Amino acid sequence: MSKLYIIGTGLAPDLITLRAIEALKSVKSVFIEQYTGLLMLNENIKEILKDKEVRRLSRRDLEDLGGKEIFDSLKDGDVAILVPGDPLVATTHTSIIVEAYKRGYKVEVVPGISIIPNALTMAGLMIYKMGKPVTLVYPKEGIIYDYPYDVIKDNDSRNLHTVLLLELDMERNVIMKVNEAVNILFMMEDIRKEGVVKPTRKGVAVAALGSKNQIICFNTLENLKKLPINEIPQTLIITSPKLHFMEEEMLKVMNNEYCKPLK
Amino acid sequence: MSKLYIIGTGLAPDLITLRAIEALKSVKSVFIEQYTGLLMLNENIKEILKDKEVRRLSRRDLEDLGGKEIFDSLKDGDVAILVPGDPLVATTHTSIIVEAYKRGYKVEVVPGISIIPNALTMAGLMIYKMGKPVTLVYPKEGIIYDYPYDVIKDNDSRNLHTVLLLELDMERNVIMKVNEAVNILFMMEDIRKEGVVKPTRKGVAVAALGSKNQIICFNTLENLKKLPINEIPQTLIITSPKLHFMEEEMLKVMNNEYCKPLK
Repeated sequence: MSKLYIIGTGLAPDLITLRAIEALKSVKSVFIEQYTGLLMLNENIKEILKDKEVRRLSRRDLEDLGGKEIFDSLKDGDVAILVPGDPLVATTHTSIIVEAYKRGYKVEVVPGISIIPNALTMAGLMIYKMGKPVTLVYPKEGIIYDYPYDVIKDNDSRNLHTVLLLELDMERNVIMKVNEAVNILFMMEDIRKEGVVKPTRKGVAVAALGSKNQIICFNTLENLKKLPINEIPQTLIITSPKLHFMEEEMLKVMNNEYCKPLK
Repeated sequence: MSKLYIIGTGLAPDLITLRAIEALKSVKSVFIEQYTGLLMLNENIKEILKDKEVRRLSRRDLEDLGGKEIFDSLKDGDVAILVPGDPLVATTHTSIIVEAYKRGYKVEVVPGISIIPNALTMAGLMIYKMGKPVTLVYPKEGIIYDYPYDVIKDNDSRNLHTVLLLELDMERNVIMKVNEAVNILFMMEDIRKEGVVKPTRKGVAVAALGSKNQIICFNTLENLKKLPINEIPQTLIITSPKLHFMEEEMLKVMNNEYCKPLK
């Protein structure tokens, strides 16, 4: 039986692993998934892909058609799906894995460097203080989905950091930025009025993590909102109410080094 | 001024990134840190190290001597510290970074694939259900440090998974295994009697994650305790009280594929 590789490509072209490259070389066809994140390919990888059958996977291919094309290709040989970041962060990839096993195929996951927990640690925050992460989405038809407010509040009560993954759908060209995220949080505050996300509250804006243009800015939410950050993808961390002194020192260092919009 | 690279080598020799390899090539001297984890080096890396000044770093070098040797080397050119996994998970490395910045050196962190969150996602559990992680240590002088019991209880109340990092100090040859970890949790239960870690409670034993011998076993704690798992390093995940059906499906798949001690 052929084998399905789910390969994480990491956060930037040169953050791909040697194992990912070897796995990619070994397969007959390659699917590229680019809707759950930004997929950036290294020159080595582009060179390898030249000799392969390469197709793009849409959300519809995976979610509505159940990966039919992938399973068709598996009949003819090994297949790889290239996924930005770490491949198991999105549930849509786990569905494909479960289905592949049910059909008797071998599956191998090649892990990749992901925004979680690296947005946290690269900013200088402690992994032991990472609370439950949550995704922040745009208001839909005028309705604000305020679950992230509850997650921040709950993480606050335990002095934990909240990593907010910002809505991203490359297919629909939806890429939330930190300033929009802060706005949405302020809208929640206006409704809930529990003092969880005041303008003076501190957070870390992270953009293009792992790339040469990486941005890490530690500041109040009202100041983060004003920063002209265009690099994508972006993530916002709401820091825990009390910081450890080592976290404060590292945040200062990282801010000095990587907060380019303030320079 | 010279530059200090803190390079994560990932979980297994071939999980090193292209950026790590390039950074390593560029430096004059290399320090190898092997006490916070198992450092396994790929053949490429060994080849590169042949032409460099390579020294091992002990915990004492970093924590008591404040990295004196590192700063002495930085006077003569760029320096790399090779660290297992992701370099910013251990606070001892952040101290060196802060110190290097204070002295005016440039610092670059090359992220690596870490046990967090990969132990969780590779087992098939959802990143959105990751609770605060905690380290489990051996009883010291007869005293059991039962803070992890509180963390599990607290994560339980939010239906989150708890990743237990098991005490590891390669210098003292202290490497906690899952069966010891389960025993320590049962001792806590005997004292606290709050029903948090009963023998029938489920968890995931993870060993040698990312290597060819990777083990992932999903079972009750009393059964995990009996499994002959020798591969290191090991991690124990206490799964959340209620699993999502996709998590249950993936756990079954991963258990079938990677729980070698049951085969």
